[in-house]
Amino acid sequence: MKQKLRLGMIGGGPDAFIGAVHRIAARIDDCYELVCGAFSSSAEKSAQTGAILGLSPERAYPSYQTLIETEKKLPENVRVEVISIVTPNHLHFEPAKMALENGFHVILDKPITLSLQEALALEKIQQQTGKKLLLTHTYTGYPMVKEARQQVLAGKLGAIRKIYVEYPQGWLSTAVENKQADWRTDPSKSGIAGAMGDIGTHAFNLAEYVSGLSVTKLCADINTVIEGRRLDDDGAVLLKFNNGASGVLMATQIAAGEENNVKIRVYGEKGGLEWQQVDANSLVIKWLDAPAQTYRTGGAYVSSFASHNTRTPAGHPEGYLEAFANLYRNFALTVLAEMNQQQPAKEALDYPGVTEGVRGMTFIEKVIESGKSSQKWINF
Amino acid sequence: MKQKLRLGMIGGGPDAFIGAVHRIAARIDDCYELVCGAFSSSAEKSAQTGAILGLSPERAYPSYQTLIETEKKLPENVRVEVISIVTPNHLHFEPAKMALENGFHVILDKPITLSLQEALALEKIQQQTGKKLLLTHTYTGYPMVKEARQQVLAGKLGAIRKIYVEYPQGWLSTAVENKQADWRTDPSKSGIAGAMGDIGTHAFNLAEYVSGLSVTKLCADINTVIEGRRLDDDGAVLLKFNNGASGVLMATQIAAGEENNVKIRVYGEKGGLEWQQVDANSLVIKWLDAPAQTYRTGGAYVSSFASHNTRTPAGHPEGYLEAFANLYRNFALTVLAEMNQQQPAKEALDYPGVTEGVRGMTFIEKVIESGKSSQKWINF
Amino acid sequence: MKQKLRLGMIGGGPDAFIGAVHRIAARIDDCYELVCGAFSSSAEKSAQTGAILGLSPERAYPSYQTLIETEKKLPENVRVEVISIVTPNHLHFEPAKMALENGFHVILDKPITLSLQEALALEKIQQQTGKKLLLTHTYTGYPMVKEARQQVLAGKLGAIRKIYVEYPQGWLSTAVENKQADWRTDPSKSGIAGAMGDIGTHAFNLAEYVSGLSVTKLCADINTVIEGRRLDDDGAVLLKFNNGASGVLMATQIAAGEENNVKIRVYGEKGGLEWQQVDANSLVIKWLDAPAQTYRTGGAYVSSFASHNTRTPAGHPEGYLEAFANLYRNFALTVLAEMNQQQPAKEALDYPGVTEGVRGMTFIEKVIESGKSSQKWINF
Amino acid sequence: MKQKLRLGMIGGGPDAFIGAVHRIAARIDDCYELVCGAFSSSAEKSAQTGAILGLSPERAYPSYQTLIETEKKLPENVRVEVISIVTPNHLHFEPAKMALENGFHVILDKPITLSLQEALALEKIQQQTGKKLLLTHTYTGYPMVKEARQQVLAGKLGAIRKIYVEYPQGWLSTAVENKQADWRTDPSKSGIAGAMGDIGTHAFNLAEYVSGLSVTKLCADINTVIEGRRLDDDGAVLLKFNNGASGVLMATQIAAGEENNVKIRVYGEKGGLEWQQVDANSLVIKWLDAPAQTYRTGGAYVSSFASHNTRTPAGHPEGYLEAFANLYRNFALTVLAEMNQQQPAKEALDYPGVTEGVRGMTFIEKVIESGKSSQKWINF
Repeated sequence: MKQKLRLGMIGGGPDAFIGAVHRIAARIDDCYELVCGAFSSSAEKSAQTGAILGLSPERAYPSYQTLIETEKKLPENVRVEVISIVTPNHLHFEPAKMALENGFHVILDKPITLSLQEALALEKIQQQTGKKLLLTHTYTGYPMVKEARQQVLAGKLGAIRKIYVEYPQGWLSTAVENKQADWRTDPSKSGIAGAMGDIGTHAFNLAEYVSGLSVTKLCADINTVIEGRRLDDDGAVLLKFNNGASGVLMATQIAAGEENNVKIRVYGEKGGLEWQQVDANSLVIKWLDAPAQTYRTGGAYVSSFASHNTRTPAGHPEGYLEAFANLYRNFALTVLAEMNQQQPAKEALDYPGVTEGVRGMTFIEKVIESGKSSQKWINF
Repeated sequence: MKQKLRLGMIGGGPDAFIGAVHRIAARIDDCYELVCGAFSSSAEKSAQTGAILGLSPERAYPSYQTLIETEKKLPENVRVEVISIVTPNHLHFEPAKMALENGFHVILDKPITLSLQEALALEKIQQQTGKKLLLTHTYTGYPMVKEARQQVLAGKLGAIRKIYVEYPQGWLSTAVENKQADWRTDPSKSGIAGAMGDIGTHAFNLAEYVSGLSVTKLCADINTVIEGRRLDDDGAVLLKFNNGASGVLMATQIAAGEENNVKIRVYGEKGGLEWQQVDANSLVIKWLDAPAQTYRTGGAYVSSFASHNTRTPAGHPEGYLEAFANLYRNFALTVLAEMNQQQPAKEALDYPGVTEGVRGMTFIEKVIESGKSSQKWINF
Repeated sequence: MKQKLRLGMIGGGPDAFIGAVHRIAARIDDCYELVCGAFSSSAEKSAQTGAILGLSPERAYPSYQTLIETEKKLPENVRVEVISIVTPNHLHFEPAKMALENGFHVILDKPITLSLQEALALEKIQQQTGKKLLLTHTYTGYPMVKEARQQVLAGKLGAIRKIYVEYPQGWLSTAVENKQADWRTDPSKSGIAGAMGDIGTHAFNLAEYVSGLSVTKLCADINTVIEGRRLDDDGAVLLKFNNGASGVLMATQIAAGEENNVKIRVYGEKGGLEWQQVDANSLVIKWLDAPAQTYRTGGAYVSSFASHNTRTPAGHPEGYLEAFANLYRNFALTVLAEMNQQQPAKEALDYPGVTEGVRGMTFIEKVIESGKSSQKWINF
Repeated sequence: MKQKLRLGMIGGGPDAFIGAVHRIAARIDDCYELVCGAFSSSAEKSAQTGAILGLSPERAYPSYQTLIETEKKLPENVRVEVISIVTPNHLHFEPAKMALENGFHVILDKPITLSLQEALALEKIQQQTGKKLLLTHTYTGYPMVKEARQQVLAGKLGAIRKIYVEYPQGWLSTAVENKQADWRTDPSKSGIAGAMGDIGTHAFNLAEYVSGLSVTKLCADINTVIEGRRLDDDGAVLLKFNNGASGVLMATQIAAGEENNVKIRVYGEKGGLEWQQVDANSLVIKWLDAPAQTYRTGGAYVSSFASHNTRTPAGHPEGYLEAFANLYRNFALTVLAEMNQQQPAKEALDYPGVTEGVRGMTFIEKVIESGKSSQKWINF
């Protein structure tokens, strides 16, 4: 029975933050073997990175096209099976399209593409090719986020009435952009949104994932706080959901002093729940007439969705890299199940894909449109 | 030198929550002696309450009019000096007006009146009579809220860019209204707003107090979540401030499981601060490039505004009643200073009054207007 | 029906910290009227304090003897009923004895006396006179500490196995003693113990109160960390309880940076509970196989012992002064019930008295003895 | 330049908890390639595990002896370089000895051996062979634990006066032992200590590591709370350090409801610091006269020892597996530096080894001796 997938990577060269994170995530649970990469648009840098990672020199490619074309010709038991694309947003669509069309499964960092149009096109390609696609909305990989969703879906909170989701960061508080900031504030690389694309989409995804609801309209206040910056670095959004619930989404990159404290609160008729990354292994559920409870990663009482995504006993904290690894692992389990002609576990199937990607791009388009509009509500 | 003020109370009979709180607040620092009251519209209940409180029977009046008229005729060294009005909103204006016009200082629970029109009229009366007025926006009485304001005013955070303020409650999560809920959800007693008037005004006041800024426009999503309720029980508001900063105000009474966790976060160029009632004696200041600091009530390093409003050594928590008492004490110190022909300390003068009352009523009018509007921004 | 007690105070003059706290505690619930005092051994200072507090000049006495003798001769409906003694430890026994023997109820700050011998003598006197005595072990006045005890007594945790109690302070971290430190580090005023008497007794009392158990033997490491200090400023104690449980008590005044973070943890067969003053309105109960619960002051689900000692709705924090006021109020309710020929409520009877005082003095004697001994265990 | 070490594993077969943790730790930073193993005393189980892990069948050995002997004969560029031993305590010494003597570097789970005698023998062997040894005291791998040590060593807190260290667990609260509990409570496999060996040594190591001090004597209360258990499951220890500081160590496995909340507090003349695993990415430093500071993993202001051991930006929590991986990575960097004839960075050299192992075994011997003694202090 096949237990490991051959992985290739596009992007993730020297100085790239998220590429290294993807590689750690891929390694943690030993479901992938990195066999090739096109790590940089510079052939030299790609080769360097390949050498550092211990790849065969001939499989450190100078471009993603070469990677896909060459790998495709390798024997089936040698060639790459899953391609992870960790380039800036403007370099998502083309490699993803080419990979899918050439028979490879794809892992994509969010947001899925540069535009909604591209996302819809990619959705169609994915459906036509039947290849699988993982979109790395990391926060949905946390066991306690999964527990939150299960509690809501099981009706423990009753009908949902209010959702608050927030993602405050402070790292773009000054005008000087670093390497990471550079492309994120460049419309040609990042798309029409800055903060809303980079972290607003995470918050949006988290709200829909945990609540099981869909946003139907929104009203946004979108700001560029730092003078001269070309994209938004701050925003707040009033939300309406398909069941009549309302919500607020706050995402900012100019909250000086904040790290990455993404947080969600969901309130229903009977109680509310609260999760935040800074205390990622706790899920607080507050009840209308009973003491609040703190669910913990590794607790004997959690759902199978939470325990499936946990490696260590309660009290030994798992963090961001493990959440990321959960996405990789679940995707691998799903792909491997198919290869092994088995049914993947429902827990393994719980990973974000192209549908979430299209929702995220719709959010970006709508939120930016709303930011410019004098009309209050913009329908989804 | 006079050290204590004679206090009368209008409202605050049996079952009244806030009247008892006002009386404790008045007692804590021994600046007031309760000498009379018109505690209920029922003469019998007023007399009962007076007896329980140890008043002379003749000074437990059957109505506020009788109280004011009778006390006015008492000798100067006997008659009441400050009248505290703790009735529902629709019974604020008339007794306050009559008290001021008859030479008494006034303490009023918030919101100041039933309507903006009344508030503006009361402002004029207060200015004409020269009598003082305290509006009990309790949360500004907390030492760490005062510290927050001082940090902002001293420029420690740099120019302010973002303000988040929230007041989630859950006690109106069900349709059954109790005694306290009853008048708060009755437009004839509460005014045009429910949650926005009851707690939204607190959040609004906190935002303007801590930041030293003024809201100039807003965009609100106002909801009545519980079917059949006659006023709003939930809302979220996008804010713009006079220096260009933006903000979000969230106030809800249907967040099942929440208590009274009012919280404010203010971010400037150099850092951000965070205060919440659940940990009222801590003020967290997060810096762009240095470890966050936790200022604590009673710390040797806090501003005079914080230490002036503290009674116990650091680590012995002071709470809501002490915050309330700070308002009463500062008001007394100000009134007594005038009586003693002294200059009140600047720390004593730091209490909310008619100006904050007018701001609060403007907020209520605008936020409800915005809630009904399809236009995005409503100017203040 | 009598509703208020006439209170006198011995000690609590200018600069006295704890006297002012006692007076606030007495005022909060309006169960006492301060009618007289011997606030200082200086007649002048006593008179000054009396004037500030608004007493009749003739009832601000130059000595506690004069107070007791003079008040005794006043008409029954005028003379003081309860005498609060807030002097340093060496001035507890004589005034308490004289007050009890002359028919007055007594409130005493802890530790009850200078020595165990005095405590035992006072116990006998109290039993003979039948007058009531309140010992202000403040921390047992917190609603969530009462809830903790109720949970243990109700067997929710099963048989108790382990108790950790700690009281870290940092205010004596330097050699320079201030006014408050001065008498606390002087054996002639404080007795044989410094930190162990000042805060160790609080921790000890808390452990026995919450667990319902009694210490039977102990092994102590007692230190004087600051050179030249005449009494202990630090200690740690291994404990054995009468049911076989073991425990650890840590009390120190040289933990630089600590405020007054008294904390207790009690573990039984089925779960453990945790309370600490810094988050005084929360009681965390951790279960063996279920999510931890957070009980909150004001919660609808708490025991009558907790709700009886609460004034404000959940989420409006009550603090140290309210805990102190709970002791005063319960003592008043007990004394008044007797005067009114009623049965006091069981919740009112739940206050510390002479029994706890004798236990505390025994602890002091044993812990200091153990500190000097090379033998491991000292029996109680 | 060599960048990766060939790793072998002894122990860590099916159902072994810590073996899987070691393997993840080894994978995270890509410094090791697992090439062989003797995963179980059952040849079949060893082969199964090897297959699951993707090893060549011939390198899944039936015993550690075979592994060492066979690997030794393999060509230098093929054979294993580092052997990780993750068996129960009684199976540490022999394989470690054989590995070192045959030229392999060794990684050992703690406690280092079954007895102090073995530990001293192993120390001598290690010194004689010159091979390196890593002892996986995981908690010293946390970036904020390293920061704590650096703050202390840099004198920021002044001379250290008091150390509290605790490790409460609840998983052995009932008499029924599971697979993990089984060997830990069996003297023939675990040695003379249960809880003291399993987690007491971690707490002890943490205290000495963070403070830079050495324990010189101790006084212990050692208990077996669960009837019928053959080793201690609970203990508390008074400590004296070589600079005159005192401390308390608490370790228990019967604190029902606790997870793995290891915590340390160290107080000096100028301030105190606090770290606990439940909030592993924060280090709180409390100052005598200034606001407390919260240092955070990934903060721009932390020492090189903290930043060297961090992979993700501040706010993306790293946890237990990353702390474990830091040990593996630093050991690899040290071993590789030697192979590459370079000087390892001082940050890489900061890993626990045989010296810490001997200290830990001394602690175990002394703490158990003290537990049985009626004498108060036992010298180290």
